[in-house]
Amino acid sequence: MKELEKRIQADGRVLGKDILKVDSFLNHQIDPQLMQDMGMEFARLFASQGVTKILTVEASGIAPAVMAGLALDVPVVFARKSKSRILTDDAFTADVYSYTKQTTNQIRVDKRFLIGDDRVLLIDDFLANGQALLALKTIAEQANAGIVGAGIVIEKSFQPGRQNVLDAGLTNIHSLARIAAFEDGQVIFMNEEDEEVDC
Amino acid sequence: MKELEKRIQADGRVLGKDILKVDSFLNHQIDPQLMQDMGMEFARLFASQGVTKILTVEASGIAPAVMAGLALDVPVVFARKSKSRILTDDAFTADVYSYTKQTTNQIRVDKRFLIGDDRVLLIDDFLANGQALLALKTIAEQANAGIVGAGIVIEKSFQPGRQNVLDAGLTNIHSLARIAAFEDGQVIFMNEEDEEVDC
Repeated sequence: MKELEKRIQADGRVLGKDILKVDSFLNHQIDPQLMQDMGMEFARLFASQGVTKILTVEASGIAPAVMAGLALDVPVVFARKSKSRILTDDAFTADVYSYTKQTTNQIRVDKRFLIGDDRVLLIDDFLANGQALLALKTIAEQANAGIVGAGIVIEKSFQPGRQNVLDAGLTNIHSLARIAAFEDGQVIFMNEEDEEVDC
Repeated sequence: MKELEKRIQADGRVLGKDILKVDSFLNHQIDPQLMQDMGMEFARLFASQGVTKILTVEASGIAPAVMAGLALDVPVVFARKSKSRILTDDAFTADVYSYTKQTTNQIRVDKRFLIGDDRVLLIDDFLANGQALLALKTIAEQANAGIVGAGIVIEKSFQPGRQNVLDAGLTNIHSLARIAAFEDGQVIFMNEEDEEVDC
């Protein structure tokens, strides 16, 4: 998505060899118009999939997910994070390991909000190692819901996230921006023709 | 806002004497169309205030805030919660005590995202005791920004939140639904004519 790539080039900050900060428009300060444009792009990409529900995780997934939900006219469920592993019969749960923070969070979704008839679109802000996406997949599977695919805002394609989720059987992954590398503090995107190979 | 009141009547669940669960459309599962309608209502209420930025707090404030930001064409900043009190020169911080959870969280906003020229609209999902709103006010004040008022989705008017924030000097508080009481598990709203008395 060219608008997003331009925004990353203009306002993203590359830190170290593998960190991209986009807190000026995506995950701390938010540009609502960009979110709406991304939501409409997700809706276009998954228009034929019969999506009945969007599943994301708090907090940074909420804005793009809600805009996609608006465009697809379906409810959005955001999984809640908890540092403690709470056992309950009322919720689907999964663990998410964060390589950045080296911590494990449990994420949870109330069982009332995912059912076996749902066709779920997973949405998240980043795909790096794939841990959050795998946890969302686990939760949808606990509900016996169908998963139509995953919509990602920014994919760091030099990290193993896409391969990890493909290996776990998740297909139809669309990322609005795919980063091939950081070079001298600049963001290098994958070529357009590389973008849809496994979708 | 009649649409919101009807939704609360239909899908809200009253638990005990003072808890209203709205997790089926606001703070766990989200109805994107309702969020957009609320965002447009916030935009109408604060249209003349010269808002330059919306400030909310993760996670439940994000959806209504982003929709208000879209309607007002301004950026949204969500304060991040942290259980640990991190000292830093880079962020404005304030403490929020939760009466429900009996815990104190620090909320923080990167100093790059609030400036003295900003005219800030505070948005949050609930006004009960006013602690979150007071913390957002503190953060805007640390930036020397102007505060144009506060937009609340659901106010529990039988709790002291509104008086607490008025006592602290925050004015122009608009709540889309004001709950007078819970009676026999039913939600009683304040009369329309009561709604704008101190705005």
